[in-house]
Amino acid sequence: MYFDYSNKTKSMMSDVSSFMDEHVFSGERIFAEQHAAQEDPWDIPPILEELKSKAKAAGLWNLFLAHSKNGPGLTNLEYAPLCELMGRSWIGPEVFNCAAPDTGNMETLDLFGNAEQRERWLTPLLEGSIRSAFAMTEPAVASSDATNIATSIVRDGRDYVVNGRKWWSSGAGDKRCELLIVMGKTDPSAHRHLQQSMILIPRDTPGVTIVRPLPVFGYDHAPFGHWEVSFDNVRVPMSNILLGEGRGFEIAQGRLGPGRIHHAMRAIGYAERALDSMIARVKQRIAFGKPLAERGSIRENIAWSRIEIEQARLLVLKAAHMMDTVGNKAARSEIAMIKVIAPHMAQRVFDRAIQAHGGAGVSDDFGLAHQWSMSRSMRIFDGPDEVHLEAIARLELARETALWSA
Amino acid sequence: MYFDYSNKTKSMMSDVSSFMDEHVFSGERIFAEQHAAQEDPWDIPPILEELKSKAKAAGLWNLFLAHSKNGPGLTNLEYAPLCELMGRSWIGPEVFNCAAPDTGNMETLDLFGNAEQRERWLTPLLEGSIRSAFAMTEPAVASSDATNIATSIVRDGRDYVVNGRKWWSSGAGDKRCELLIVMGKTDPSAHRHLQQSMILIPRDTPGVTIVRPLPVFGYDHAPFGHWEVSFDNVRVPMSNILLGEGRGFEIAQGRLGPGRIHHAMRAIGYAERALDSMIARVKQRIAFGKPLAERGSIRENIAWSRIEIEQARLLVLKAAHMMDTVGNKAARSEIAMIKVIAPHMAQRVFDRAIQAHGGAGVSDDFGLAHQWSMSRSMRIFDGPDEVHLEAIARLELARETALWSA
Amino acid sequence: MYFDYSNKTKSMMSDVSSFMDEHVFSGERIFAEQHAAQEDPWDIPPILEELKSKAKAAGLWNLFLAHSKNGPGLTNLEYAPLCELMGRSWIGPEVFNCAAPDTGNMETLDLFGNAEQRERWLTPLLEGSIRSAFAMTEPAVASSDATNIATSIVRDGRDYVVNGRKWWSSGAGDKRCELLIVMGKTDPSAHRHLQQSMILIPRDTPGVTIVRPLPVFGYDHAPFGHWEVSFDNVRVPMSNILLGEGRGFEIAQGRLGPGRIHHAMRAIGYAERALDSMIARVKQRIAFGKPLAERGSIRENIAWSRIEIEQARLLVLKAAHMMDTVGNKAARSEIAMIKVIAPHMAQRVFDRAIQAHGGAGVSDDFGLAHQWSMSRSMRIFDGPDEVHLEAIARLELARETALWSA
Amino acid sequence: MYFDYSNKTKSMMSDVSSFMDEHVFSGERIFAEQHAAQEDPWDIPPILEELKSKAKAAGLWNLFLAHSKNGPGLTNLEYAPLCELMGRSWIGPEVFNCAAPDTGNMETLDLFGNAEQRERWLTPLLEGSIRSAFAMTEPAVASSDATNIATSIVRDGRDYVVNGRKWWSSGAGDKRCELLIVMGKTDPSAHRHLQQSMILIPRDTPGVTIVRPLPVFGYDHAPFGHWEVSFDNVRVPMSNILLGEGRGFEIAQGRLGPGRIHHAMRAIGYAERALDSMIARVKQRIAFGKPLAERGSIRENIAWSRIEIEQARLLVLKAAHMMDTVGNKAARSEIAMIKVIAPHMAQRVFDRAIQAHGGAGVSDDFGLAHQWSMSRSMRIFDGPDEVHLEAIARLELARETALWSA
Repeated sequence: MYFDYSNKTKSMMSDVSSFMDEHVFSGERIFAEQHAAQEDPWDIPPILEELKSKAKAAGLWNLFLAHSKNGPGLTNLEYAPLCELMGRSWIGPEVFNCAAPDTGNMETLDLFGNAEQRERWLTPLLEGSIRSAFAMTEPAVASSDATNIATSIVRDGRDYVVNGRKWWSSGAGDKRCELLIVMGKTDPSAHRHLQQSMILIPRDTPGVTIVRPLPVFGYDHAPFGHWEVSFDNVRVPMSNILLGEGRGFEIAQGRLGPGRIHHAMRAIGYAERALDSMIARVKQRIAFGKPLAERGSIRENIAWSRIEIEQARLLVLKAAHMMDTVGNKAARSEIAMIKVIAPHMAQRVFDRAIQAHGGAGVSDDFGLAHQWSMSRSMRIFDGPDEVHLEAIARLELARETALWSA
Repeated sequence: MYFDYSNKTKSMMSDVSSFMDEHVFSGERIFAEQHAAQEDPWDIPPILEELKSKAKAAGLWNLFLAHSKNGPGLTNLEYAPLCELMGRSWIGPEVFNCAAPDTGNMETLDLFGNAEQRERWLTPLLEGSIRSAFAMTEPAVASSDATNIATSIVRDGRDYVVNGRKWWSSGAGDKRCELLIVMGKTDPSAHRHLQQSMILIPRDTPGVTIVRPLPVFGYDHAPFGHWEVSFDNVRVPMSNILLGEGRGFEIAQGRLGPGRIHHAMRAIGYAERALDSMIARVKQRIAFGKPLAERGSIRENIAWSRIEIEQARLLVLKAAHMMDTVGNKAARSEIAMIKVIAPHMAQRVFDRAIQAHGGAGVSDDFGLAHQWSMSRSMRIFDGPDEVHLEAIARLELARETALWSA
Repeated sequence: MYFDYSNKTKSMMSDVSSFMDEHVFSGERIFAEQHAAQEDPWDIPPILEELKSKAKAAGLWNLFLAHSKNGPGLTNLEYAPLCELMGRSWIGPEVFNCAAPDTGNMETLDLFGNAEQRERWLTPLLEGSIRSAFAMTEPAVASSDATNIATSIVRDGRDYVVNGRKWWSSGAGDKRCELLIVMGKTDPSAHRHLQQSMILIPRDTPGVTIVRPLPVFGYDHAPFGHWEVSFDNVRVPMSNILLGEGRGFEIAQGRLGPGRIHHAMRAIGYAERALDSMIARVKQRIAFGKPLAERGSIRENIAWSRIEIEQARLLVLKAAHMMDTVGNKAARSEIAMIKVIAPHMAQRVFDRAIQAHGGAGVSDDFGLAHQWSMSRSMRIFDGPDEVHLEAIARLELARETALWSA
Repeated sequence: MYFDYSNKTKSMMSDVSSFMDEHVFSGERIFAEQHAAQEDPWDIPPILEELKSKAKAAGLWNLFLAHSKNGPGLTNLEYAPLCELMGRSWIGPEVFNCAAPDTGNMETLDLFGNAEQRERWLTPLLEGSIRSAFAMTEPAVASSDATNIATSIVRDGRDYVVNGRKWWSSGAGDKRCELLIVMGKTDPSAHRHLQQSMILIPRDTPGVTIVRPLPVFGYDHAPFGHWEVSFDNVRVPMSNILLGEGRGFEIAQGRLGPGRIHHAMRAIGYAERALDSMIARVKQRIAFGKPLAERGSIRENIAWSRIEIEQARLLVLKAAHMMDTVGNKAARSEIAMIKVIAPHMAQRVFDRAIQAHGGAGVSDDFGLAHQWSMSRSMRIFDGPDEVHLEAIARLELARETALWSA
């Protein structure tokens, strides 16, 4: 057991950190100004593609793609602290072409796509020249149970015809989005885990309607957004199926491990930034004759935040290590644990930071309220807390244990 | 001690409740549609004034104004459950002319205004023909400590000249707003509680600039909003001072008691609605073969919500009773307690309700995320938790107590 | 609605409070000294019976017995604050002949006993000349589900023969205990709520064995204790059955309401005393140059304790009021709520008080650790939290509710 | 970064674990039986010394003594998981001669004792032939602030004379205890961190009185116990001072690091055992027609316990790693964090386990209530939570941080 980052990791952390300091944090303000100035909130402020070019030129690109010849060859453990650093900024992950849902889609294509599919979609995604979305959750059913999914994928000659309605498809309305990976049912009568398939649908296919953006606690997250999408007799060639009929559940399981690590690491990144801001603020503000920093309850809030962040980070790193060494299946309890604990931790850290900022904390003058909305919604997307707690409990209950008789 | 509502109260609860069912809940949708359809989000959807007229005609008007010949003569205890009912809807309080900050401003004018001031401002406010705002908090200082307030009110001949910058002045940008009640300092060298004064400033006075609306967790609460306002050499006649120079702190203390009861009662109202929605939702949604309503952790969340709501309601009612019988000063610990506990309770109830709604809970398809933002910010406005906890602690520590030696 | 105690109640509160101050708190120390000096820890220190005589002489006797001609005729609401006052001392309730389990047993006999049973057992219990126990929980089964109870009560001629093993039968080993009220099954094949019966068993009946005292977090609560009792072919006449065969569940439901109120009120009483002691302590102790009372986190702990105590008290009083006015069945949600919240509240208040006392807090030099053990175990006895939360949830889920569509 | 235990560690874990399974867990019952059978509860049951001999023979001895030629040469990181395994049993640590307070005393003597002191005291302690105690906390002052300590150590000729009263001196009354290491003041007028000295006092020195054992939540922890000790004109030779006058604070700082790691690791060990017992219990017990293991809230409690244990363990291991690599001073924030989080975690895990065991959980039929008392008191001894949170906060506030301006 060894708790230092490797020299390779440290060196990359230094590179990413320097890039963040030089380009990304100042880029946030430019992004905001450009976004405020443009007429259509769904246009992409030009600074974003400029920053992407810079990051690519600096070789800080696609770092997320672990264990693949199509990426820089990092492990999950090596990528984790880089992901945390990127996560300190809302625009950070995309700058490095490491943003969800593209990351999960690239992993999916890398692992499960055939040569033709990879050539058509993975290549431009790795280039950062297009974006993509993932369409799984449905408004009409409790999608935490994936077997509830009702979108139909029906074979018709050499084509599949897709009908259904999805929501929370992040980035589907992004103007650069060209691909939707859609989960639906090819055989509702099969075993419950063999009914589902995943299929590649170009966004401009007739019948695909980008219905509306869904706000998260009032934030529409423009110009990216989370979208409702309807599929009305959407017809795509047979070759667009991923891996084959009935393999959708299997692919979903495969894609979720790294994605959960990424979200958790980003949560740690922005929790650190919230704590930083809290510390800076309480040193500045004076009430009742002394800085807020001298108040005992504020100090305890800072200490608890540090404890919770440290613990969550270590668990995420351990989960990454296990994914690298024993695989996602053996690491499924650890992955479930970080899926639960990272947003809970972030929610608490943000709540304290917001409180210490006073009215400023709930406004948009600081990044706290905005990013809080992401930490809260992370307790729901990619499976609600309840599903992951259940997964952990099931594994615990399967262990051999003894009563503690005195 | 007696825990039933009086017959008078029950009868009025029935009237308010019927009005809510008949007009207000359906009015919410009309309001939303009109608001979405209009070009300027800061226009007032016409349904609002129509509903106000109906409520006025029904005699359900200005019910908040306790212990005054200018109102219907209810006590705080009688008004409390009515306030709770109105609070179930975001638009409810204004429909009945019982919305903050007008309520606090009307109370202030009723108690502390002279005849001329009451005639000029209280009358149209009681009519509901204008709206008003209250400007106390400042961006540059920790305003939880009222002595930090820096806005200057300087005597110049027969006028006062006001300079300063305020924020979180709710409704200041409402197109119907005509009056700002502003807290500032007339004598920075006086005793710390005698430096402040309150002054009446017509919104159209030269030098008053409505700078920008401040969002709360992404919600701008249009067409009402919370505003930043600047005062640059704003000149008003001497007669606009309330009560006299140096009386600002005293007025602030007087106005806050009822306002805190009102906010707390509304919080109970919307917490009830959130719990209702949670119950309705979990009975509908099926996951893993059974309704969410049959899951143990969901059931415990419902039970805890009920316990927390009941306890908070009783404490608010007791505080109202004490204000009526022994006065705001003797009730200051109870008022502080409900100021703390009501939003904490609501935040927890909403958090559980949102989680049970899944993705829908964080969206705007339900009222949960929107109203959550109010419950969270209530832990900051009108004094942050920390200030009220300190007030309670100070009173407790002043009690005679004994060690529990065994 | 009215939040003052009635004059009658205030007068009795004053009497009980004075008696506590004059006799009971000082009696605690005498009790402890006598107990420490005697050879057998299960002997009753003489001070106890002396205090009982004094209380009886003062007319402060059997106050718990609400709505009965056999008691002083108080309502539950009138008794509640008296019960709280008595509960501030561990020996208080018995001094006033208001201690569990006798109170529940007296209520049971008063409501469900026939004339002969009342004469034989209720009279001496009301006199305070004997004590009694209640035997329901069994070590071999999850007794939170009363239908699990396995003790058999079999008719044999003019007798019943009882076999089984009980535990947590408080007071069964008290040297003054003469009566056990035992819950068992007369007909295991009947409907699940008609299988049980309650039977009166004199403690000296052959076959009754007082097996051992059960400590609670290390405290044996001598000279009273909680006991394991076995029944081996215990034979009592038919006439010892209460109300009739198959009525046990019905009686259990009837007896639990007041008992839960009593436990909850006592919890409030000792939580108040813990908070008092915390306040006294932090004013005395100096660390790092100032009294603990000036530390922000200690002050917030005091404020939160006050908030939680006030809320719990009001809910208990409301439950008592409902029991008086609409009956135990209509009040069952409120009764369940206080059964859950009172010990949770007390556990938190004690935890903070103990922490503020430092090492002294976990020792027996103060009453905190000892009484904490009661507050913690109260989350289990008379039904664990889980059972009561479930009862609340079931009632909530039965309500008509609406979704909060925006 | 690497999250597997080294092969060396794994091999030793296997040895310790096998020894626990073969000898220690069964030894607990023998210990309890022998203890119950003996007349004097303060006699040491013979099984204990037998187990110590076995562990010594197996080479599982003094494993705690990191980085020392007097021990087996493990690092803190290597020892940590062994300490966790030993901590699963109340008697485990002593069986391996790894029990507090001897461990801290041996470390102190090893680091700061001179040759003579080591020969006289360290040798028999390492042999396990005597035991020792540490006397720092005093009943009369808030000892969380070490500068409050009032015991005097006054030079008189070639001797020191010690006067004062200590409590919570664990093991001082153990019949095998021969040495007390006592903290007192040699120079009350010196700089606040140079007033204190530590001195070695043989327990049989005239003037040393073992006053009484102090129970922890009712548990006296016989035959070991926590003691009040008085020092009345206790005279020892000058050579008994450790390191020199005024070095007491420095020694205290040095000794606390490893001790906190050890307590934290043991807390993780017994939390694991509590979770094991909870799992075993809920699979067995049936209520309302299904095992408790199928209840959703029980399952979530199990999952949360797993998450909290995993996080705490990783943080303890990281702290151990830092102590090994950058030293106790650089690791002081991590050491403070685990001192806070380990008992909090254990308290929560035990609370859930106790609840799931029902009445059995608060009794002594299971080890839960007993060990709970240790986890709760660990939040006070070796410095209360508040002191360690403050230490963390101070370090955080010293960091350079930036506001998160949006």
